[in-house]
Amino acid sequence: MVCCATPSIGGDHAISTSFHERLQRAWSHADSLLCVGLDPEPARFPAHLGRGAEHIAAFNRAIIAATADLVCAYKPQIAHFAAVGAEQALVDTVAAVRELAPHAVVILDAKRGDIGSTAAMYAREAFVRYDVDAVTLNPYLGSDSLQPFLEWSDRGTVILCRTSNPGAGEIQDWPESDPLYARIARIAVDKWNPHGNLMLVAGATRPAELARIRELAPDVPLLVPGLGAQGGDLGAAVAAGLDRHGRGLVVNSARAILYAGSGEDFAEQARAEATRMRDALRQAAANTQGSGSQPNT
Amino acid sequence: MVCCATPSIGGDHAISTSFHERLQRAWSHADSLLCVGLDPEPARFPAHLGRGAEHIAAFNRAIIAATADLVCAYKPQIAHFAAVGAEQALVDTVAAVRELAPHAVVILDAKRGDIGSTAAMYAREAFVRYDVDAVTLNPYLGSDSLQPFLEWSDRGTVILCRTSNPGAGEIQDWPESDPLYARIARIAVDKWNPHGNLMLVAGATRPAELARIRELAPDVPLLVPGLGAQGGDLGAAVAAGLDRHGRGLVVNSARAILYAGSGEDFAEQARAEATRMRDALRQAAANTQGSGSQPNT
Repeated sequence: MVCCATPSIGGDHAISTSFHERLQRAWSHADSLLCVGLDPEPARFPAHLGRGAEHIAAFNRAIIAATADLVCAYKPQIAHFAAVGAEQALVDTVAAVRELAPHAVVILDAKRGDIGSTAAMYAREAFVRYDVDAVTLNPYLGSDSLQPFLEWSDRGTVILCRTSNPGAGEIQDWPESDPLYARIARIAVDKWNPHGNLMLVAGATRPAELARIRELAPDVPLLVPGLGAQGGDLGAAVAAGLDRHGRGLVVNSARAILYAGSGEDFAEQARAEATRMRDALRQAAANTQGSGSQPNT
Repeated sequence: MVCCATPSIGGDHAISTSFHERLQRAWSHADSLLCVGLDPEPARFPAHLGRGAEHIAAFNRAIIAATADLVCAYKPQIAHFAAVGAEQALVDTVAAVRELAPHAVVILDAKRGDIGSTAAMYAREAFVRYDVDAVTLNPYLGSDSLQPFLEWSDRGTVILCRTSNPGAGEIQDWPESDPLYARIARIAVDKWNPHGNLMLVAGATRPAELARIRELAPDVPLLVPGLGAQGGDLGAAVAAGLDRHGRGLVVNSARAILYAGSGEDFAEQARAEATRMRDALRQAAANTQGSGSQPNT
């Protein structure tokens, strides 16, 4: 069932199945836990492509074409488009995923959070204007700020829990006796998953907290940022976060793949790096399952 | 000093003085604590104006023209533009404030919060693309997510502390012994005000929490949403939040003013409601100062 207010909205890709069914298919189709983060920075584009905002769509399309069979998801980060007025490039990027990687889910990284009436506007931005499969949300404002998203039962809601950045602990790990991130995970499982379309963000930089989130939310898929430039350990993150079915993870990598090369072969370089990461994730998952060390077995 | 990376950006209105100086001037010029929230909902526009997204800029301009002398600030809420692809209307709305109410500060209500490299993109969206005086931010990701905004020393950063929505307490009032909102207020004063350009959001719906924030942050201006449609009590909010100088509050009202009328006289109706609110705020401030009941006297 789609949100009652907009029964006819969304392409067939989006409304014919639940978000979790689409995610399961994406994992199966590509046999991959890898998500490519689309954080376009025109100043880092290869010179031959051009380094202005007008080249964002072409850059993203080249990356998507080069990695389509290697990933379960793409995660465009909206600030990279909004900062330079490239809304149309975001529309074009989502369209490129539908065309070139139709199995993949598109997670819009927007980290929205506002009161109910405004949250409905943000949901419209994500699910109507950009027609993505899921959107990231910030839980600081509580349940009523998330409700307008949760009502879109065919779309995914990806709620920040324990983020990967250095300053996250200042807020999210407090109080020590029962840290906020753990409270968020508990509330999310209890109240924010009415249609089974919940994901949680759990950074790769903190495997212990990631393992705790997996323990509190055994069946919830986790979006895992923080590998590569942010320094997270891939093996530790997979061991901590894999679910009982040997899946449950969407592991994001952006800059390490997007800017693997800066010459005319940038797409081939991106493919090589994405292949390396997909394989490393496969190996880590096999190791974890082989050792029986993941929780909830 | 403006952010080192963009020394020449911003109109003269924005870079010639600090944000707090501009806010002081705005309070003085209009002798008003009132901020009009610009949350355009085309379906509620007067019929004669037209009810599509293409009429947002004209609607906002009419509201600004009708209220310019009554307010210290305007607060456009970005989702209302982004949901319908009306980015140009937001540019036009900011320009209308500069033209018709040059004393007023413009606070972009975006509630952004992301890791450092992405936060810099959001800062660019707010301070370059839309060239606003201040932007609202969500503190869930901690200090490093706010730093790229704080570096814009001539712009204001308005950090969510205790919001006005019904579900806010679930996250922000926990744990009871030392609630998150109070912790945010303390950290904000200690670490997030290096250039004196900090504001905090404290909802009118919870005067006790508002008073606690004023106690913890005696010199920080507060953005106060939650009057009108959300049910906050104006007198209680002013009594709780006024600073030692009888100011320190930017009290937002959106729907009650924007949609005071729905006929051809909608702008006059908006002006009448804004006048009523400005006067009520003046009276409440006079009562509070007269009684000596505000904190920090």
